[in-house]
Amino acid sequence: MPVNVRVFSLNCWGIHYLSKHCPQRYAMIGEMLSKEEHDVVLLQEVWSEKDYLSLKKKLASSHPHSHYFKSGVIGSGLAIFSKHRIHDTFVYRYSLNGYPYMAHHGDWFGGKAVGMAVLSIGSLTANVYVTHLHAEYCRDKDSYLPHRVVQAWELQQFIRHTSAGADVVILGGDLNMHPQDLGNRLLRTYTGLKDSYLETPKFEGCDEGLTLIGIRIDYILFKGSPKTDISCDFMCTTKGSVPDHPFPYSDHEALTAELRLKTHTPSDTGSEKVAELVDIVTEARTEVKVGLHCAEGMRYTAARTGVMGFALLILELAIAAVPWLALGAEQPFPRTSFYLLAALCFAILLTTSLLYIFYTMELKSLQGAEDQMRLAVGSLQEKLRGFPLAQQYNPQRRPPEGQEPSAFDPEE
Amino acid sequence: MPVNVRVFSLNCWGIHYLSKHCPQRYAMIGEMLSKEEHDVVLLQEVWSEKDYLSLKKKLASSHPHSHYFKSGVIGSGLAIFSKHRIHDTFVYRYSLNGYPYMAHHGDWFGGKAVGMAVLSIGSLTANVYVTHLHAEYCRDKDSYLPHRVVQAWELQQFIRHTSAGADVVILGGDLNMHPQDLGNRLLRTYTGLKDSYLETPKFEGCDEGLTLIGIRIDYILFKGSPKTDISCDFMCTTKGSVPDHPFPYSDHEALTAELRLKTHTPSDTGSEKVAELVDIVTEARTEVKVGLHCAEGMRYTAARTGVMGFALLILELAIAAVPWLALGAEQPFPRTSFYLLAALCFAILLTTSLLYIFYTMELKSLQGAEDQMRLAVGSLQEKLRGFPLAQQYNPQRRPPEGQEPSAFDPEE
Repeated sequence: MPVNVRVFSLNCWGIHYLSKHCPQRYAMIGEMLSKEEHDVVLLQEVWSEKDYLSLKKKLASSHPHSHYFKSGVIGSGLAIFSKHRIHDTFVYRYSLNGYPYMAHHGDWFGGKAVGMAVLSIGSLTANVYVTHLHAEYCRDKDSYLPHRVVQAWELQQFIRHTSAGADVVILGGDLNMHPQDLGNRLLRTYTGLKDSYLETPKFEGCDEGLTLIGIRIDYILFKGSPKTDISCDFMCTTKGSVPDHPFPYSDHEALTAELRLKTHTPSDTGSEKVAELVDIVTEARTEVKVGLHCAEGMRYTAARTGVMGFALLILELAIAAVPWLALGAEQPFPRTSFYLLAALCFAILLTTSLLYIFYTMELKSLQGAEDQMRLAVGSLQEKLRGFPLAQQYNPQRRPPEGQEPSAFDPEE
Repeated sequence: MPVNVRVFSLNCWGIHYLSKHCPQRYAMIGEMLSKEEHDVVLLQEVWSEKDYLSLKKKLASSHPHSHYFKSGVIGSGLAIFSKHRIHDTFVYRYSLNGYPYMAHHGDWFGGKAVGMAVLSIGSLTANVYVTHLHAEYCRDKDSYLPHRVVQAWELQQFIRHTSAGADVVILGGDLNMHPQDLGNRLLRTYTGLKDSYLETPKFEGCDEGLTLIGIRIDYILFKGSPKTDISCDFMCTTKGSVPDHPFPYSDHEALTAELRLKTHTPSDTGSEKVAELVDIVTEARTEVKVGLHCAEGMRYTAARTGVMGFALLILELAIAAVPWLALGAEQPFPRTSFYLLAALCFAILLTTSLLYIFYTMELKSLQGAEDQMRLAVGSLQEKLRGFPLAQQYNPQRRPPEGQEPSAFDPEE
């Protein structure tokens, strides 16, 4: 007998004093959720734990189980409410998440992460994930692209490696990526997650499923397992305004997907899928390399500026200590200028040291992701070669193995 | 037919210029590894990537597959070399790892982590983990205990959640915990990993399996799966000096375990195990709460000092700006003192702000772990109640469920 699961996802835009009508909107959200009684509610940008706690109180009877994922300075902003028992939770904080000095973008302080909760839905084990990736502030010149690609990479790694024991996998959240963006393709192709907007036979909501003015960046994705089939019967989004209320729930639209779980009927994943994956991972690797190059340049600039600050300090100390260096100037080194200059040198040294450390960490994370991707491509290519069954289906057969013996080196 | 797997683990003590005879010891290690040809080699404290690369070159024929796990400012120091194909790697960086200002302890800069590699050993999938937890500098007054307990918690979470698809799980590394330490019990009981030193029928090496002067803190742990049984046939450690060489390989002893994998024969895990786990997780939660309390105190101190620095700055500016505030002092505010005092105030403000941010992050991580532990205890207690099979084996039956209806509240 099939089991129906209603999943809800919303980026709550919960920045107190900055987001408009924050307390009123939380009240509306709480009211709606307790009425709608979704099975699983996935929220993002719940930046204040107080708001989570007040929602928890309000949803105590409709959603007795909940978890707030803590991470970073401010928090991850991620929360889950569930009708079903949560057995276990885990959180993975992305290794890259913008720059601390881009304070007006603020992502770094949020400690962006993916949260996971293991639920029992009837006799099935569901791994439910909620996440929020780094924002895209300028699509044409997106300096955060390598960071977001690494986040998408880590997200798919985390989901793939943690979901082997699950019957059902559900991911909801604000991916900050358009449907065909690299990170999105990487995530969906590698994990096999399906986009409920693309899968549903019946949709109600904004044109083209848009979730933020002009773009679709919020998703509910899902997949089954060898034991369980999953499909989407219906999906809807809010359409800006809310009947009988003066404002919308958030600056993003809310998503609801009605999923149906049932016993498995077998299917194939052929070599075409793997070949596509090799291409996407290779593209992602290129993007990460661009980021690496850029971070190396910035670290070099920080180091050079730091060395110049240090040289200036030494010079100043030398001039102050050895009077004849002042080359016959009549006045001694003015005290005020001396202290101001020294303070400036120290400030430069401190700032560049912190930046140097930060860029080093960024480089490590980028290199780490690049290493993992290289290894993954090698493994996928090997899988592709050893696809005897898939090759029978494939009309354009590759040349037999003996004819291309050393073209591929997994350790390159 | 059983498969034999030889696993090696060593903390390499690879701090150039600080560790004694570092290049010579790496040469010895490389020579020994290429001769011994272990299936899997797990190394810790390979702080320099150059050393990893030179080992990789030396082991190219004996161990064609390898990975270096990047993380943090310096790196995780973790590396794996394998005779078998590495299909996938993943790294989880612990959310807590000491304090940046304890620079002489240095752990914070290392970005301590757990690295994972998915190997194919024959037809079996092996998840191999390598890790290095925060050092214990003073056993009697160990201020890092909450951090290490959270690391052990995250380690068991990571292994449990990522190993559902594996036939075999192997963990090697420097846990910096004695065999009966809380974190060690937490790790072994929750994951079901067995200690090869305790399991082996045949051991050669230092008395009581010691791996660092007077203590046993390095381990090779393992477990099978519903499909695969695993046992340890033989284990050995080095005994300090190495024949024909002037120094030992490292300040730690090297561990070798010979594991045997074969098809599964079923066994039970009863309610005793779960009850023990509830006790251990509860104990860990207490330890984390102690850390929470301590971090709260330190954050409060940082905030108070920052406020005082700010007040001092305001006072100074006021005195300088409004001469009559100087209460009839004859001299004006001396310029040198003014700048020195202002610089001091700024330094205090900057330091306390950074510390405040750092302690906030620490608090979030501790709270996050505490939340996860509370949830886990709830889930385990529920499992314990619903153990109909186990209760039949258990001579001391618990009272029937009706008699203790509301004693347990999972959401407390």
